[in-house]
Amino acid sequence: MKIIRKIKELKTHLTKLSKQGKTIGFVPTMGYLHEGHLSLIKMARKENDIVIASIFVNPKQFGPSEDYKKYPRDMERDSKLAESVGADYIFTPTKNEIYKEDHKTYVEVEEIDSIMCGASRSGHFKGVCTIVLKLFNIINPTRAYFGKKDYQQLVIIKKMAEDLNIDIDIIGGDIIREEDNLALSSRNKYLSKRERENATVLYKSLKLAEDLIRDGKAVEKVKKEAQNFLLKNKYVKKFDYFDIRELYTLKEIKEKYPKNILIAAAIWIGNTRLIDNFIINR
Amino acid sequence: MKIIRKIKELKTHLTKLSKQGKTIGFVPTMGYLHEGHLSLIKMARKENDIVIASIFVNPKQFGPSEDYKKYPRDMERDSKLAESVGADYIFTPTKNEIYKEDHKTYVEVEEIDSIMCGASRSGHFKGVCTIVLKLFNIINPTRAYFGKKDYQQLVIIKKMAEDLNIDIDIIGGDIIREEDNLALSSRNKYLSKRERENATVLYKSLKLAEDLIRDGKAVEKVKKEAQNFLLKNKYVKKFDYFDIRELYTLKEIKEKYPKNILIAAAIWIGNTRLIDNFIINR
Repeated sequence: MKIIRKIKELKTHLTKLSKQGKTIGFVPTMGYLHEGHLSLIKMARKENDIVIASIFVNPKQFGPSEDYKKYPRDMERDSKLAESVGADYIFTPTKNEIYKEDHKTYVEVEEIDSIMCGASRSGHFKGVCTIVLKLFNIINPTRAYFGKKDYQQLVIIKKMAEDLNIDIDIIGGDIIREEDNLALSSRNKYLSKRERENATVLYKSLKLAEDLIRDGKAVEKVKKEAQNFLLKNKYVKKFDYFDIRELYTLKEIKEKYPKNILIAAAIWIGNTRLIDNFIINR
Repeated sequence: MKIIRKIKELKTHLTKLSKQGKTIGFVPTMGYLHEGHLSLIKMARKENDIVIASIFVNPKQFGPSEDYKKYPRDMERDSKLAESVGADYIFTPTKNEIYKEDHKTYVEVEEIDSIMCGASRSGHFKGVCTIVLKLFNIINPTRAYFGKKDYQQLVIIKKMAEDLNIDIDIIGGDIIREEDNLALSSRNKYLSKRERENATVLYKSLKLAEDLIRDGKAVEKVKKEAQNFLLKNKYVKKFDYFDIRELYTLKEIKEKYPKNILIAAAIWIGNTRLIDNFIINR
């Protein structure tokens, strides 16, 4: 496995590979890899000739008061893990390699980027779309892999690719969970022992909502019950949203439930923001 | 020469050409071709194996009160002209082929898009960047050609390409003028005989400004004199801007003149908006 820090160097390799007609699977990450990331690299390994994972903590997707600086980084550990599941290249550029001082160009997927996580994290998806498009243009992969834990991100990237005629297959990988069902996240590392124990409240609230939906309870009532359930837990310090939407478009559900539903929530356990979601196909 | 209306059909041709290692020169236009466009197609012809011109009146770059509907169209004439200077393909999709009903993704080059033409045409460059990026992604050309009459557009597209790691050479073609120095524009067609005669006031104001700059007159004074000169002509119905900026960055000039200067103006002759510019290398 090769670790590459410079765009130019990566391009040299890529030009060679493209001349050989190789298919390229790309897994963009912010590093501090866990089984969720590794499952994406494994998928990419199965479906492509060459697998490239990027590790780049993208400053443009963090708000000014968010955890850009303290976001966990461990390149040595990450490269061992990526290699162990078959990555051929890690692309890990510096901030200055990616963003020139006078960077001015941004990509936005309007409307879908201002609901759910976009409502509480203003500018977040603008930063995500911009870095993903840049990485797509640098790497020009055949397929790109994103985790379904950031389900809204997956919908937005798919929409961006469709709207901008980007010829890359965007593929979602299932959420990987701990034994007690907490969704894997690099941010779980921030949790204290007690917070970690109580973090399962998020999964439980989604399960509760699923049961209520299957019982035919109305959307607004389900949301209210799930919210109440979450706020009863004293480790839930802040509540960003609990939302139920049409799976593919993220459109609001007015009355009748559609065939495919997303239940998604974001809460703060102590100072750590956690997200999770369920997909229901009825 | 082939005229193609569908993205899929164009892609079939392009895949073949790319496998043969052909270089592709791309000239995006809104049609109603004049010698300015043709000079770009000629440049592309000299520098590439294959030349593709697009003809698409892009609704997203017109404001609600602008001339999208009445913008001149003449496909038969355009295709003859494009063929006469060596285009291999014309890509002329319908509005629905390019923008799906729920199109939501836009590209913006911030700051540079809100001065000059961007100040009077809100959202214009967002529409331009979005269509150009889409066409770039569809065609994936080696080189793309833009006229310097829309000099701000050229700077913005170059910046977008740099910021988004788009691997396409962006090339500017010189302004082509009538004998009396009016810059060629598809919109000149709107002018009445009297308006057409008086439209040369725009070129003359730029020449005046150039002389004053070469005489060492201060920026603000030059702008003021040029503005007064324009507004004295009773056919100048509205005045959008007269601006003097650093050529490559379009940064404001505070005191000392830089080595390379852009003088640019936009005025309305009757109901027709005209733009023009001079480049000064000192």
